[in-house]
Amino acid sequence: MHIEIQRKAEISLSKQIYQCIIDHIRSGLLQEGEQLPSVRELSKQLGVSLVTVVKAYNKLEKENFVESIQGRGTFVTTEMQGKVDTEQDMLSFNWQLSVQDYLPRSQFSQFHYVPEKIHLSSSMIDPGLLPNRYLEREINQMISENPKLLSQYGPIQGDEQLRFAMYEYLKGLEVPTKPENILVTSGSQQGIDLVARTFVGPGDVVVMEAPTYPGAIDVFRGRGATILTVPVDNDGMRVDILQNLCDKYKPKVIYTIPTFHNPTGAVMTLKRRKQILNIAQSIQSIIIEDDPYSEIYFDKKPPVSIKSLDEYGHVIYLKGLSKTLAPGCRIGILAASGSIFKRLLAAKSNIDLGSPLLTQKVIVPFIKSRKMKDHTKKLRTALKVRRDLVLSILSENAPSEISWIIPKGGLNLWITLPSWIDSNHLLVKVKKQELTFLPGSACYAVEHENHHLRLSYSYMNEQLLHRGITILCEILQSEISLKKEHNHPPYF
Amino acid sequence: MHIEIQRKAEISLSKQIYQCIIDHIRSGLLQEGEQLPSVRELSKQLGVSLVTVVKAYNKLEKENFVESIQGRGTFVTTEMQGKVDTEQDMLSFNWQLSVQDYLPRSQFSQFHYVPEKIHLSSSMIDPGLLPNRYLEREINQMISENPKLLSQYGPIQGDEQLRFAMYEYLKGLEVPTKPENILVTSGSQQGIDLVARTFVGPGDVVVMEAPTYPGAIDVFRGRGATILTVPVDNDGMRVDILQNLCDKYKPKVIYTIPTFHNPTGAVMTLKRRKQILNIAQSIQSIIIEDDPYSEIYFDKKPPVSIKSLDEYGHVIYLKGLSKTLAPGCRIGILAASGSIFKRLLAAKSNIDLGSPLLTQKVIVPFIKSRKMKDHTKKLRTALKVRRDLVLSILSENAPSEISWIIPKGGLNLWITLPSWIDSNHLLVKVKKQELTFLPGSACYAVEHENHHLRLSYSYMNEQLLHRGITILCEILQSEISLKKEHNHPPYF
Repeated sequence: MHIEIQRKAEISLSKQIYQCIIDHIRSGLLQEGEQLPSVRELSKQLGVSLVTVVKAYNKLEKENFVESIQGRGTFVTTEMQGKVDTEQDMLSFNWQLSVQDYLPRSQFSQFHYVPEKIHLSSSMIDPGLLPNRYLEREINQMISENPKLLSQYGPIQGDEQLRFAMYEYLKGLEVPTKPENILVTSGSQQGIDLVARTFVGPGDVVVMEAPTYPGAIDVFRGRGATILTVPVDNDGMRVDILQNLCDKYKPKVIYTIPTFHNPTGAVMTLKRRKQILNIAQSIQSIIIEDDPYSEIYFDKKPPVSIKSLDEYGHVIYLKGLSKTLAPGCRIGILAASGSIFKRLLAAKSNIDLGSPLLTQKVIVPFIKSRKMKDHTKKLRTALKVRRDLVLSILSENAPSEISWIIPKGGLNLWITLPSWIDSNHLLVKVKKQELTFLPGSACYAVEHENHHLRLSYSYMNEQLLHRGITILCEILQSEISLKKEHNHPPYF
Repeated sequence: MHIEIQRKAEISLSKQIYQCIIDHIRSGLLQEGEQLPSVRELSKQLGVSLVTVVKAYNKLEKENFVESIQGRGTFVTTEMQGKVDTEQDMLSFNWQLSVQDYLPRSQFSQFHYVPEKIHLSSSMIDPGLLPNRYLEREINQMISENPKLLSQYGPIQGDEQLRFAMYEYLKGLEVPTKPENILVTSGSQQGIDLVARTFVGPGDVVVMEAPTYPGAIDVFRGRGATILTVPVDNDGMRVDILQNLCDKYKPKVIYTIPTFHNPTGAVMTLKRRKQILNIAQSIQSIIIEDDPYSEIYFDKKPPVSIKSLDEYGHVIYLKGLSKTLAPGCRIGILAASGSIFKRLLAAKSNIDLGSPLLTQKVIVPFIKSRKMKDHTKKLRTALKVRRDLVLSILSENAPSEISWIIPKGGLNLWITLPSWIDSNHLLVKVKKQELTFLPGSACYAVEHENHHLRLSYSYMNEQLLHRGITILCEILQSEISLKKEHNHPPYF
């Protein structure tokens, strides 16, 4: 088990250990029945006092994550995973447990592919809204014209036609770049990973929004970064707080999702976009501008990208196409410049020698054609309808103790529960009714915020969406009433 | 520029700095005309004496890699890249040069995609030998039956059908595993990277063969590993030397290509396979068994995989399918077990949330059918013909000072030149005749071996192969004669 302690962090060491173990449990890296290292072992391994470890273990036990058995040790008791690793020959592999890894967290994997019927947990788009039939025709034609497509590696940087098509497409989004400054990645998750492995190492300071996209937290934590967080309000990242942090530390990387922020849906104002860039310039930091779906706006167009304001190569811009076009192709791009771009390109070669040519070629004609515009328009309309549906059900049925932010675009809705409701526990309950969401705790890099949840309204059709939100409201309603009636202790 | 010094290594610090800078130049990370840090800066950054840096710079200058200009500094002079970064706005991005990265080497990228006509530099297979037409039909059928294929993410672990098909296929290769212990990767390059990022960190000891696959060196170097090397003879890795190393250090990972070793073509004997596994068991190490093309044997079947001998989960087995089946799909698999597998799966989620579903589905029917067997048979025959052609041209035309190892399978031929010929310089010459090969130096993690080269006979048709090898022999012949006649100093 990899536990990383940051001595200069403002959180106590025992809290860090506590959080790390919870992360392991929630990431499926520590499973039901698995034994934790002994207090003595862990204190030795981390170079901390016995008391520090005992404190962390006690807190975990109090909150029912672990169970300590006299004379045997401490074991994971959580029922959150719902599945036990039943591999019979696990015993033969026991030596493996002593092999240290560099993997503190991989929470997202637990919520990405779920068996539940009403799947509100990850932001994907209903396949019925994606242009499968068009793409199908294009694939057939393309391959019959050029069957060698399957037998060739593409350039490591990505297919030239795709880079050119993306350059044109990005121009339409007011994201200026050049085909030679575009790198094709396997989804924007790989883009984040690429930047992290190239520029972030142990102890380097990375600033993230709180909350933020869990997949990015996992990646930066995996590099041993010191993560500092800045809260998000309706206008995006709180730049005043960012400024204070930057005065004190000097982050190497600032990661932001300025438009339809994931998970809150907030849109960073133009003013703040300019400020954040100014800050990065003054302290020579890299900004990662993650832009999964700025095209999907419901009212008015969002402000221009930070990248469009960038004169000196501070911004690495990431655009995923997987979600909005063809998840089966897993394509994203990264746009950057100068030596930063050059180094990212070299890193891409080390990662996988380039993304598959087939999946790149498949989407080129669509992106180049008018259809891309029509498709985006369609998504805007269809997702607005779903968002409105969710909002209306919530307004009618949600207990008054619940609040939410109205998203002006994107795929997600961020809900805040009363502080005594832990959304991880709530998830166990709603799963019994075949419903899932993303517990808010996955979206926090350092804070212990357990009373939020993210709903994605983009994947389910309206009928299932209706049912799902109604069920959620009912369960919340009943929990709150129960608490009010009996005023029972917060077992939640 | 990221320079990593290993104080416990047996190579002097100045040699390490020297090698690191050459790696940067050969990886295209330091380009013609770029300035090196000043001696003072670098000595401060690395915490070494001025003399150490001066020594390294002097050696680089003597060998014409850099040029120092009075009062201005030291600049890269090499002509190896053949291209200069002409980006005009490079100046605006000068602040980027002070951004430290974690990317010591990415040599392979320079040889992967080349404009030269006679491309003997990377081991790919002639597209004319790959089953494009079959796959084309399968794609068309599959997509028309299930257009939603494009609009879905697959499981992070990989498509179930593909994992089952690979399980059956691997059974045929005597590589026992289970579908649930298979992880689909984007080529085996990603498999190596996955293991490295999960289990290898700064200072961890990794053992590699010398020479070995450059892409693996790049990845382990990028993790800050301490790399120790073991030479390869006709029977594979020298296990006696490995044993000595393991007695002294205790490598966390042993990386090997036991069958048709890349680049030498050597096949590890069964006895050594057993020994290497015993060693790993005794010191609780992980073995990465990279198996790009054990199916491509020319005479008799190679010995069984190390994985098939593995009882306690020490072996992580990697199988690429890109080269031998469909490079355009970039599919490979990784087979492992126990907690090691579980952690690799979690890491895959952090890397890219899973490989594209489309490229996975495309190859399933082919792998499951008889065609896969026939295809492999065809490759064996066709590549044997090409190997024989190369061997016969070499026997007839190569100067007697040149030697080579006869490969009994795989795609590569390893040539040893007289020690005064540097194959990096030779490459510059042959490129003028539209020919490329892989300079042997790329295949060494720590040694300074410049008088080898790797030819891949699998990509070019017989006509171009004939021409390429003939040209190479002519150039070598003329260089050697010239040296003999004039006994001129080894400018090579």
